[in-house]
Amino acid sequence: MTQKRKIKLGFILHGVGRTWDDWRHPERNVRASTNFPLYRKQAQLAEKGKFDFLFVADSLSINEKSSPHYLNRFEPLTVLSALAAVTDHIGLVGTLSVSYTEPFNVARQFASLDHISHGRAGWNVVTSWLSDTAANFGRKEHPAHSERYRIAAEHLETVQGLWDSWEDDALVGDKASGVFVNPEKLHRLDHAGTHFQVRGPLNIDRSPQGQPVIFQAGASETGRDFAARHAEAVFCGPADLEEARLYYADLKSRAHKLGRKDDLPFILPGAAPIVGLTEEDAEARYQELVALTSIDTGLGFLSRSFNDHDFRKYDLDEPFPEVEHIGNESNQSASQRILKRVRKDNLSIRQIALELATPRGDFVGTPTQVADALQNWFESGGSDGFVLFEPLPGQLDLFVQHVVPILQERGLFRQDYEHETFRENLGLSIPVNRYAVGRKQAG
Amino acid sequence: MTQKRKIKLGFILHGVGRTWDDWRHPERNVRASTNFPLYRKQAQLAEKGKFDFLFVADSLSINEKSSPHYLNRFEPLTVLSALAAVTDHIGLVGTLSVSYTEPFNVARQFASLDHISHGRAGWNVVTSWLSDTAANFGRKEHPAHSERYRIAAEHLETVQGLWDSWEDDALVGDKASGVFVNPEKLHRLDHAGTHFQVRGPLNIDRSPQGQPVIFQAGASETGRDFAARHAEAVFCGPADLEEARLYYADLKSRAHKLGRKDDLPFILPGAAPIVGLTEEDAEARYQELVALTSIDTGLGFLSRSFNDHDFRKYDLDEPFPEVEHIGNESNQSASQRILKRVRKDNLSIRQIALELATPRGDFVGTPTQVADALQNWFESGGSDGFVLFEPLPGQLDLFVQHVVPILQERGLFRQDYEHETFRENLGLSIPVNRYAVGRKQAG
Ligand SMILES: Cc1cc2nc3c(=O)[nH]c(=O)nc-3n(C[C@H](O)[C@H](O)[C@H](O)COP(=O)(O)O)c2cc1C
Ligand SMILES: Cc1cc2nc3c(=O)[nH]c(=O)nc-3n(C[C@H](O)[C@H](O)[C@H](O)COP(=O)(O)O)c2cc1C
Repeated sequence: MTQKRKIKLGFILHGVGRTWDDWRHPERNVRASTNFPLYRKQAQLAEKGKFDFLFVADSLSINEKSSPHYLNRFEPLTVLSALAAVTDHIGLVGTLSVSYTEPFNVARQFASLDHISHGRAGWNVVTSWLSDTAANFGRKEHPAHSERYRIAAEHLETVQGLWDSWEDDALVGDKASGVFVNPEKLHRLDHAGTHFQVRGPLNIDRSPQGQPVIFQAGASETGRDFAARHAEAVFCGPADLEEARLYYADLKSRAHKLGRKDDLPFILPGAAPIVGLTEEDAEARYQELVALTSIDTGLGFLSRSFNDHDFRKYDLDEPFPEVEHIGNESNQSASQRILKRVRKDNLSIRQIALELATPRGDFVGTPTQVADALQNWFESGGSDGFVLFEPLPGQLDLFVQHVVPILQERGLFRQDYEHETFRENLGLSIPVNRYAVGRKQAG
Repeated sequence: MTQKRKIKLGFILHGVGRTWDDWRHPERNVRASTNFPLYRKQAQLAEKGKFDFLFVADSLSINEKSSPHYLNRFEPLTVLSALAAVTDHIGLVGTLSVSYTEPFNVARQFASLDHISHGRAGWNVVTSWLSDTAANFGRKEHPAHSERYRIAAEHLETVQGLWDSWEDDALVGDKASGVFVNPEKLHRLDHAGTHFQVRGPLNIDRSPQGQPVIFQAGASETGRDFAARHAEAVFCGPADLEEARLYYADLKSRAHKLGRKDDLPFILPGAAPIVGLTEEDAEARYQELVALTSIDTGLGFLSRSFNDHDFRKYDLDEPFPEVEHIGNESNQSASQRILKRVRKDNLSIRQIALELATPRGDFVGTPTQVADALQNWFESGGSDGFVLFEPLPGQLDLFVQHVVPILQERGLFRQDYEHETFRENLGLSIPVNRYAVGRKQAG
């Protein structure tokens, strides 16, 4: 009997919110983004709900106009390490940019987190899409989009090489003979590439997962190719089920063409369920969210996707203007998605702006309705699971109490953690070290 | 009535040991350096003993001949963040090199740790002394010694500037008006220096300490000047009380000449007490340590301080050869100290090698003897406190149980933590943000 395919669930810890206005909810702590007790509480709740992982997003540049959840945030690796100490089973996925970090430092940080957590680390590989990030790192220019992905591939390859620099049994620790390491099993990487030159070995023993799990969130063509080649799980933000299915099929097929078969990446759309005990309750909660949203916020969203284009100069209630060419390569996928949506229902600027600011999505309803919708996405080729946001305070608790048991009853979600490591709980195996593979083939 | 001056105590978490051979002790876990439960246990024990801080050292390059405690180690900021979640009062001091990191990333990591720990972060600013570190970071050459200190000064200044980029009340969070930050109180740094160009602001709210505590460990002339100017606490490794007093007087006087008065840096020598319940017990424990040491280890220590000079080519029992000029600028202070020691007692190569590998120090004895020796250093101008190593498993426990109460009875050490933050527990005040100072002066 084969094991039934299970929904993967992640929870994104986003402090004050995921939108410009979430923080204005009466029950939000405006300092939530640097409130560790709150992070701990959410992490432990997600673990109680048997979630696969926690996810921490990131960015590296702000100005006084940035969204509140960008302005103030924990550095991902520090907060995930702290959470590792107060959880036991849940995966810990941190976003870290390849554009302004050294592979040696990144490899260490994740290996260290993997040791601290006994095998629960994951890296969401991003390239930083805010172009003024360069100014915080002494660079004249942010690398162009395609260049960033070339850097990303080489950075990741270097980090993964460093993670293999200690074989499983390199640390001998034979007290009688005084042999601490076996020098044959401790490897230099000697990577000499275009963007990085790194000798190795890493100064930390092979970690429990060997290779922390790789996440990615490519949306553009180049980004999708990168994800298809390198990612074990993909976090994406489709606007609806149709878009999700197209993305799902496209990414799986790209990966398949690259020779991946049993190890196609998991596709995990973001979802922001609003669970109510009745339909009316759910709708009322959604309206609480809508009430927080201002047209300013909507316009902010809109212009961010169109290279800071000023939409106030138009009549907001007229049909959407001709601005196709204003998006730059960094935000092209977002602007294209918006244009598609606008054309579909011939929306005005005001309509699309407000919709962008308060996306409703498919997941507003009673626990059964929400479970049905998740199941529908999962079973109709839209996803392998979800990364959940908490659009309103208290939603994670409601989800864990009321939706998780339904998914469990339906055999769609685990009753308990099956394994020690994040990788194994996802159904992935612990990779054999490349040098051990080499030795096996040679021997 | 003025408060009696108190001993500051730190504990260095060093996993398998502080020497080449410590790991061979029968009770050492050979994987101690990446064993988080052990780190947690030691951290909680040090906190039970009311220690001021935990300290984590670091280095960025290994080869198969490196010392076991260099080969395998946690990355400092991740492990300290994890410890922040399982302790409540103790300071958390992490070593991070300025030579291969970006000020923006470093500022964030420590600010994040300061938030997670509610005000307990400290940064030990180092420049990385192993010259082959460059090869792990794509650099042709490790910067020269004096250049490294110039980089260090600019890096630190940049990080401290970023820590001030949010004023105390920059995060407004007014839900009614929708004002999240006050743009007047969120500052760009616009640092444009020789080595770094960083715009800011930092993407994390001002942390509880405002400015995490600055540690340093300068030994050379340049290093001492750096410490005198920038450090709030200095970790040093004098061979004996005489050397400690010279260092203490020198560093305080350098700081005084730079205009520091009430805020001279604390001088904290490393100490590796071996506490026994009787004198014989203590001596027997010290001999356990000696028995672990090999001449190979001693020679390894020696040649490391003399630019990898091969001492095996001499008769090990002859007087020390003429090798003054072999130390390079990175290890000049270590080699000079060794030469001084050798000349004092006309030691052979074997003698100095074994002595280097198993330093005895002043702190082997009964709890009263150890307390007496610490008090003697503290009261005779040798130190403001100590950073304790654990030369043998179980020593921290013995120290907390037997030595701490004696120091407390004598009024030399705190009965309990006095404040919330590390900075305040050290007797330092929370610095006023530079922009608030400016405004006060202008207003
Ligand atoms: C759901 C989702 C989450 C993302 N999270 C982050 C993030 O935390 N930090 C970041 O720099 N970029 C993040 N990105 C941006 C992606 O890394 C990527 O740059 C973006 O999707 C644009 O795709 P492209 O780079 O392939 O054009 C995210 C994207 C998506 C779709
Ligand atoms: C007690 C002590 C601890 C030190 N810890 C570290 C460390 O953890 N990492 C590091 O790179 N250097 C460390 N150093 C080296 C110092 O940063 C410094 O490079 C060294 O003392 C030589 O001094 P100088 O650089 O002034 O010549 C330490 C030095 C001392 C004395």
